[in-house]
Amino acid sequence: MDLKAYLAARQALVDQELDRVLPAGHGPGARVVEAMRYSLLGGGKRLRPILCLAAAEAVGSASEQVLPVACALEMIHTYSLIHDDLPAMDNDDLRRGRPTCHKQFDEATAILAGDGLLTAAFLVLAEGAVRQPAQAAIYAEVIHLIAQAAGHEGMVGGQMADLLAEGQPSSLEQVEAIHRLKTGALLTASVRSGALLGGGTPDQVAALSRYGEKFGLVFQITDDLLDVEGDTVEMGKPTGMDAVRQKATYPAVLGVAGAKTQARHLVAAALADLVDFGDAAAPLRELVQYLLVRRK
Amino acid sequence: MDLKAYLAARQALVDQELDRVLPAGHGPGARVVEAMRYSLLGGGKRLRPILCLAAAEAVGSASEQVLPVACALEMIHTYSLIHDDLPAMDNDDLRRGRPTCHKQFDEATAILAGDGLLTAAFLVLAEGAVRQPAQAAIYAEVIHLIAQAAGHEGMVGGQMADLLAEGQPSSLEQVEAIHRLKTGALLTASVRSGALLGGGTPDQVAALSRYGEKFGLVFQITDDLLDVEGDTVEMGKPTGMDAVRQKATYPAVLGVAGAKTQARHLVAAALADLVDFGDAAAPLRELVQYLLVRRK
Repeated sequence: MDLKAYLAARQALVDQELDRVLPAGHGPGARVVEAMRYSLLGGGKRLRPILCLAAAEAVGSASEQVLPVACALEMIHTYSLIHDDLPAMDNDDLRRGRPTCHKQFDEATAILAGDGLLTAAFLVLAEGAVRQPAQAAIYAEVIHLIAQAAGHEGMVGGQMADLLAEGQPSSLEQVEAIHRLKTGALLTASVRSGALLGGGTPDQVAALSRYGEKFGLVFQITDDLLDVEGDTVEMGKPTGMDAVRQKATYPAVLGVAGAKTQARHLVAAALADLVDFGDAAAPLRELVQYLLVRRK
Repeated sequence: MDLKAYLAARQALVDQELDRVLPAGHGPGARVVEAMRYSLLGGGKRLRPILCLAAAEAVGSASEQVLPVACALEMIHTYSLIHDDLPAMDNDDLRRGRPTCHKQFDEATAILAGDGLLTAAFLVLAEGAVRQPAQAAIYAEVIHLIAQAAGHEGMVGGQMADLLAEGQPSSLEQVEAIHRLKTGALLTASVRSGALLGGGTPDQVAALSRYGEKFGLVFQITDDLLDVEGDTVEMGKPTGMDAVRQKATYPAVLGVAGAKTQARHLVAAALADLVDFGDAAAPLRELVQYLLVRRK
């Protein structure tokens, strides 16, 4: 398959749907919608939505059916970037090649834009459930697993742990624990929710969840590597910041070569999780291998 | 009925349930759970949960059935207080008689605690739906209306508009528009969600929603009045701040006497909305009248 064409088509599908579910605002609160749209529609790989769509495909579902979930995942991811970039957190000025939300608007607006996107994610999920009442019970499970992955037992807890770990020496176990929460949980939820809503059997959902966990770890390892080896222009944000901030990273505890070996092993194991899915899982296979060669 | 005893019993029920659904954390993200619990369990009138429980009662439902929704509403309210108190927003040091979250912890932790509470609210709602799959379609409607009331078309949009209106001369229409979004939407959603999940007929849900809208306006008018006339110690936060910040308030546009008259008219109209509910709506009647005499 042509992964580049697949990614471009899926990104376009997701971008179009995001633009539709969050139209420009009017009335007294229009400014916060402008800020939400600035961050949400300003590019991005759309990795979480694409994982969700590909997991639905892998269990034989038309991917359009899970579009609301795909959009919600991207909204949650974008809100987390906006809040992580705030001066009180990572204090970043550049994101996806443009000024961060609080730089483009101001801090109060950026806090509210993040809050608005997180809330809108659940609005979009609930809308999906309301439109398909026969699926409401499955949607409830999906909302539950996404909220768990995004909240204090997932992404929010991971960001807290990541901030606390700055400047502290970390073991491999600590780095893994932080990143399982901070990025792994929502990536795993992306795969899992697509598989669930796509109508996968319990065995299929379990196998795809195992794939998703490994995908999350490989993603984080290669993200850490890009911060060491990547290019600021291609990345759309400054590199080398993890070392400056003494962040808990894989290259810091395993070395660059060790981190690369670890990533390759995990990719092989993730491919093994897909062995029973045949051609329907071709995109998921390509996606996890792509992590090893990505440049942004 | 004895409103004081009713409120105390309901507050105790809600406090107990909040403590149960958000237990103390462990592991790398425990600090954010500590901050979430600090703000969530540190007192508060529990007005939104109590409205939700009372609306369920008014349509003949056992109020315990809507406890997950009641908890979610209080979590959303608390998250909004934490974020509104941040230095980039209202920059408040005191809340419910104690240091605000960012004063007790730090700014990053407070941002994350708010994010965590907002996410946990939807987790609790989804949990309710998962536990009662036969109710999943109604839960979907409830999640939808709460997300709408909390997000950019509701509370988040209202907070944005409120910040933008600071220092600007405002008309009564503008003040009402802001407060319908900022506080009215979630109060109305509290009543509406209780009525819906309690099994109210469409007519009952509509009547209680009209009551809820008026309740929201009266709440805001009396809140503004307390900022003019209230006592810092009783309120648990400094008073007189709206005037300092040139906030858009009812006393500012109507005068104190005019605002009081407006509040009394709205209470009478809210009572008229309850005329078909008989004794089951006694708590809702007492609650809206109580707003006129509350001192905090």
